Order: sequence, then structure tokens, then C-alpha cells
Amino acid sequence: MKVDIIISANDIKKEKIKDKTVIIIDILRATSVIITALNNGCNEVIPVVNVEDAKNLVKNNRDKYILGGERNAVKIDGFDFSNSPLEYTEDIVKNKTLVMTTTNGTKAIHGSLGAKIILIGAFINAKAVAQKAIELNNDLVIVNAGTRGEFSMDDFICSGYIIECILKNAYAELSDIAATAHYIYTQNTNILDFLSKAKHYKVLMNLGLEEDIKYCCKTDIIDIVPSCKFTSHQVKIEKK
Amino acid sequence: MKVDIIISANDIKKEKIKDKTVIIIDILRATSVIITALNNGCNEVIPVVNVEDAKNLVKNNRDKYILGGERNAVKIDGFDFSNSPLEYTEDIVKNKTLVMTTTNGTKAIHGSLGAKIILIGAFINAKAVAQKAIELNNDLVIVNAGTRGEFSMDDFICSGYIIECILKNAYAELSDIAATAHYIYTQNTNILDFLSKAKHYKVLMNLGLEEDIKYCCKTDIIDIVPSCKFTSHQVKIEKK
Repeated sequence: MKVDIIISANDIKKEKIKDKTVIIIDILRATSVIITALNNGCNEVIPVVNVEDAKNLVKNNRDKYILGGERNAVKIDGFDFSNSPLEYTEDIVKNKTLVMTTTNGTKAIHGSLGAKIILIGAFINAKAVAQKAIELNNDLVIVNAGTRGEFSMDDFICSGYIIECILKNAYAELSDIAATAHYIYTQNTNILDFLSKAKHYKVLMNLGLEEDIKYCCKTDIIDIVPSCKFTSHQVKIEKK
Repeated sequence: MKVDIIISANDIKKEKIKDKTVIIIDILRATSVIITALNNGCNEVIPVVNVEDAKNLVKNNRDKYILGGERNAVKIDGFDFSNSPLEYTEDIVKNKTLVMTTTNGTKAIHGSLGAKIILIGAFINAKAVAQKAIELNNDLVIVNAGTRGEFSMDDFICSGYIIECILKNAYAELSDIAATAHYIYTQNTNILDFLSKAKHYKVLMNLGLEEDIKYCCKTDIIDIVPSCKFTSHQVKIEKK
């Protein structure tokens, strides 16, 4: 299999992802939230681009839904929860549908329409998502959501770790950017050290979100691999 | 000054380069050729996107022009020279105009129209181009030509070295991708070792171009900084 990386939601080119296996990564924090919520018994996650669309979707059936997400890394007015994975505990999410909107992650998911399959990855499920990509036996593009349309070091090093997990169990031909991400990971197995150089890390630390960051950098604590289902008017992310 | 990087000629976004200082890098080999030729007395370099346009430009005044460039890293039929910087010696280029067309570098130069100033950089003039960027005291975008529209490790590590040269003499606020390139350079001061992982390196090695690669990885052997002048119908690159 070939492995390539797209560096941000704003850099997705349709021809690069067409018919590929895509893994979406937004470790700080959208995909870490999605994986955590589904692992804790959430029925499904519906990523929505706009705040108003998210509110409209839940307004007539408030009991069934949780409304989560962020703008500028902060909870949105009228939403139940922010973009902290630590909020999405079993007692909150079990048997509910999470409607979420985040700046970068939701955009990356919607932008990846056209891929053969879209998986959701993060450090917390890296081995599992790598194994799933191997089983699918198709060329892989790891789409980094990035931050505000820019390359983000946190997603990049996580891509490198997923590639490391793939290479332990399969042959893969790496593009130059995939080889660079893999190199970065192999030089920085202390992930937090590397991340301390990242802009988005500093933003979250200034918001007092150190515990979120620590959680999002834990590797392989969850073994589910969420995948996206596109219908004519909606994307749903499910546990399997 | 802020420092950012664009990872390939296909990833240039006009709003990112508008009014910025841009340094174009295509170390293997277009910008290494341009810098070498101008340093050896060439009057000016005219980068042209199409082979036919290049041939038409020189046909009525063959004595004045040298025709150089590559497709798939190989000399073009009817051209005088390929894309090897070692060919552009003083006896060949002195007082001539070099018309060149290369796959990635020429595209990056034409794609950067809209920048405040466009400089030409490579390892061979890295310190000089870094110093020029500092003097210009404007936000900087390093445009990596890349290879076939893709991120290329060779241009990326060179960006990291130019950033290292800037940081030695000025404060710069690095974007995440600029910080990553800088990190890559600081971990790999043996440039050739890192480049041996790159796809384009392997292509050139298979073509027997090891001496070209070694030359292009020499640092700071030339102190000129070519810059681009756009006229209504042409780009010209001059020594100062």
C-alpha cells in the first residue's frame, strides 16, 4: 500500500483522496472526542459544519441528542459540551447521538467525501486504525485536519505514529511527506515534548486544557475504529 | 518577521503569498542552476513554463541565448543543456541569457506572482538569501517547488536550513510547518543522509546524477541572491 498525508483541511485535493482509504486526524481535539464518545456507548456522531445547522438538527428532539463542539477552542453558546474528550463520559453519552461542530475536524471529514472509506484516527486508537487500514489493503491518505487551515504539528506527529504502527505489520510505500512524519515520530517518542513547540498546543495550554492534551496524547487506549457513512444530506460516524 | 512554508508549487495559495517576501526553493535542481549560472556571469535567466515557448523565445537570436531545462529530470530534445548546475560554467554562460524550463521550479516562480518580492534560494546561497530576507524586514513565505506537485524532502530540509540562518541573526515567529522544517534541519546537519530517504534523490541517483546532488547540498558557497522581475509578458531573474 502507498501512504500519503494531506496537511490540512484546506489542502484536501479531491483527486488525491478519490477511492482511497482516508484516516481523518484532528487529535486536538475533534477526533479524540469522537473516538472517546463512541467508545463510551454513544450511538453515533453527526459532524456538522455550521453552528446553526447543529442547533436546528437537535431542537425537536433534545433528549436524544448531545450538542458538542467549539469555536476558537471554546464551548459554543447554547451547546451542552465543549470539545474536551474528558466531558464525554459513559453516563453522558450512552445511547445518545452526538451532534458536533468543530473548526477543523468537521471540515476535514466533509472535505473527504469521495474516498472509498473514511476512518477516524487519533493517538488513542492509533494501533487499531493502522490495523484496519492494513486489512483494507488499499492506498491510504492520512488527512490532517490541521489548525485554521494550516499544518499542525500535533496531527503530523500522530500521522507518523500511525505509519509506525502500519510498518510494524505491513509493507508500505511512503510519500516524502509520509516519510517525514514517520521520521518526526521516530525522533520524538516523547510526544508531549515535540508538541510543546506547536502553536495549537500553546493556545490550549493558555486555556487551561493541559489534562485534555495529556489525554489526547495517550497511545492505544481504545481499540474501536469509527468510520463515516455519507447519506444524501448528512454524515454519520459509527463505531464500526 | 513571520516565517511560513508552502510545500509544493501545486499548493501555492495567492492569499498566503500576497505582499510577502517569497523565497523559491527547488534545490534539485532548478534554483541551484539559476544561482550558479548568474554567479558565473549569466546576464539573466528567463523561466518559461512550456518547452515550445522556450524554443520560440530563442529561435531568432540563438547566439544570445542558452536553452536549458528538463522533463522527467532529463535534457529536452533540441535544448543546449539539461538541469545540471555543473553544466552552467563561466565559459558557457558569461554574458548570455539562460532560457530555462523545468517541471517544478518554473511553475513555482510563475505561481508566486503577487508576492512583494521573489528571491531565489538553495543550499548554495542559503546564508545570503536568509540575510536578504532579514534586511527586507517583511513576513516571509518559503515556497518549496516540490516534485511533481508533491512535498519533497530536499526542499523541506533546505527551508529548515534557511530558517536556521535567519534565527542566528534575527527573531522570527515560525508557523508549525516552518518549525517542523527547522527541527528536521537541526536533527540532520548531514544533509545527504536525510536526503537519501527522499524519492527525488533516488530518481536522480538512478540517472547517475550523484555529483549534481553533492553540489546542490553544499552550503553557502555563493553569496548572490537572484530576484525575479515580472513584466507584462515575462519573468526575468537577475543577480541582484
